[in-house]
Amino acid sequence: MRTVVARNGSLRVDEIPDLRPETGQVRVAVRSCGICGSDLHSLRHAGSVVAMSEAIGRESDFDPDADYMMGHEYCGEVLELGPDTESAVGAGDLTVAMPFLIRGMSIDAIGFSNRIVGGYAEEMILDASMCLKVPNGLGADMASLTEPLAVGLHAVNRSGIERGDAALILGCGPIGLSLLVWLKARGIGPIVASDLSPRRRALAVKLGADAVVDPREERPVDAWTRIDGVRPLVVFEAVGVPGMIDEAMRSAPSKSRVLVVGVCMELDGIRPMIGIIKELNISFAVYYEAEEFADTLHAIAEGLIDVEPLVSGRVGLDGVAGAFHALGDPEGQVKVLVDPALPGTQIHPVR
Amino acid sequence: MRTVVARNGSLRVDEIPDLRPETGQVRVAVRSCGICGSDLHSLRHAGSVVAMSEAIGRESDFDPDADYMMGHEYCGEVLELGPDTESAVGAGDLTVAMPFLIRGMSIDAIGFSNRIVGGYAEEMILDASMCLKVPNGLGADMASLTEPLAVGLHAVNRSGIERGDAALILGCGPIGLSLLVWLKARGIGPIVASDLSPRRRALAVKLGADAVVDPREERPVDAWTRIDGVRPLVVFEAVGVPGMIDEAMRSAPSKSRVLVVGVCMELDGIRPMIGIIKELNISFAVYYEAEEFADTLHAIAEGLIDVEPLVSGRVGLDGVAGAFHALGDPEGQVKVLVDPALPGTQIHPVR
Repeated sequence: MRTVVARNGSLRVDEIPDLRPETGQVRVAVRSCGICGSDLHSLRHAGSVVAMSEAIGRESDFDPDADYMMGHEYCGEVLELGPDTESAVGAGDLTVAMPFLIRGMSIDAIGFSNRIVGGYAEEMILDASMCLKVPNGLGADMASLTEPLAVGLHAVNRSGIERGDAALILGCGPIGLSLLVWLKARGIGPIVASDLSPRRRALAVKLGADAVVDPREERPVDAWTRIDGVRPLVVFEAVGVPGMIDEAMRSAPSKSRVLVVGVCMELDGIRPMIGIIKELNISFAVYYEAEEFADTLHAIAEGLIDVEPLVSGRVGLDGVAGAFHALGDPEGQVKVLVDPALPGTQIHPVR
Repeated sequence: MRTVVARNGSLRVDEIPDLRPETGQVRVAVRSCGICGSDLHSLRHAGSVVAMSEAIGRESDFDPDADYMMGHEYCGEVLELGPDTESAVGAGDLTVAMPFLIRGMSIDAIGFSNRIVGGYAEEMILDASMCLKVPNGLGADMASLTEPLAVGLHAVNRSGIERGDAALILGCGPIGLSLLVWLKARGIGPIVASDLSPRRRALAVKLGADAVVDPREERPVDAWTRIDGVRPLVVFEAVGVPGMIDEAMRSAPSKSRVLVVGVCMELDGIRPMIGIIKELNISFAVYYEAEEFADTLHAIAEGLIDVEPLVSGRVGLDGVAGAFHALGDPEGQVKVLVDPALPGTQIHPVR
């Protein structure tokens, strides 16, 4: 069986032994797996993630210097259940599942592991109790967007934003756009979105942003002041590079909330006095609750949110390394889905 | 009339013209005024406060290079009301008031102004509508603690801490101790307090801390884990030097809250990834609401909180410069009260 492997900071495709589901597990054929920005980060900063885990007192048996496997935004077709295994899914069903594998008392992350195969592979093993059946005839590509959209839903929930509030989204990558989709679905407005990339700004407009701004031409908060400036504002930081939290703090009005969902893995500089003078509240968000994951799948399947515009390309296993490279250019790709059945290294444009 | 004046980074006592209350104002004789840590900061960083105000888009007519007057933790005895002025206080009453003077559409801060006399003076002008009568026979010294204690109450309110939660207080200066007093009054426990100074740790014990820790000997959060480690923990950062917000984030358990009330005026470094992995919520607090200010006065007057141990010394106007210097040593003084009637430069120990 073939899987993408990260080795010494680059990606290659390896042949590995076939997988067999144990009791409580399900073997699936990967039909679609999104490439996540955090995977791009990981490839460059795998060691710093471990160092960070240790800094906060979490033990990790992850070895960034050994081979590891990524891919946590997957949708698979069920091939077989392990012995004496019950599940909400059966052979032939499409399934999505939160990226965790429970073994006894330990919970292993799928998609960032030296041992467990991730979604950039022909097949993978999922936890039977985690598997949700993809409803409503939804296809694998859209179903595989459940994970990144659940991140957006969780961040919106954690922000405490309510109807009558306005939103400023800094960064229109997949996570920023996911925030936009949920905020729009909740009737929040106006929503002002900011990104350096014309392509991503255009996508934000398509997904319902009331205004978009190039931060080189106008400060995003000034654009908000121009078109509204009255409603309580929640600032969402979805860029994740040094300086952006300080910029979000500088932009946020007094007593307002900042929600940080952009993953900045480096040391960052802030001016606490800005937070103090304005009595800001800053929340950080990552991942999601099981209920949010399930709610997201159903919202996509029932057409409550339109996520199709997020997908810009599809690629086979041999094209993953090239897709990681292409994703470095925000004008090129937004969300690339890996379909192990696709041959070659080419990225197939979706629209 | 005599007032302390800040000039070129140092303090001196000047003779200035007598004050006259306008309509809506009250003239008081200052009976006690606490020296606040932010005044010590201001003397060193007056320019950076202006730069910060401008960075967040607030205009300020404060000129850090010109003379200015400080003192915002005052209790005065009413001498006279302005013409046609109504107030809750009359001549002879002791009064405390939030440090603002309203003039038409503008609100001026008292205690950090080139024009308005602050509490380090024989007399000052207060806004008649702001004046609260000191109740219950409470003396001026204890009444002048209303302001710093209101800062603590506001921070505790903003933290959202509830009975059943535990608290970790980083820093046992007047603000950290003020937090402790309120947390204790709310039945929060255990409360772990950390400070480098043995004297301040002893004071924290006296004020009800369940455990105190020297951060050079044990990480404060480890002390909490040792004695509790179970209850939801709120971390209060009341040190206000670079690195402390990151330390608070590193200490805070997953999904917990950090309340920053320590005033760090410099650029500070944080590792956002710590906030993201743990999904922390960080709130900043400064000042208080009018209701919190009044509640604090009454809590002191009714003996609901015991604030007497906070006061370490009393000094006259000529001793303010020396007291600023002495407050740099945490083993020496905690809260020094200025009594303009005291002669000389000596700091009179309170206990």
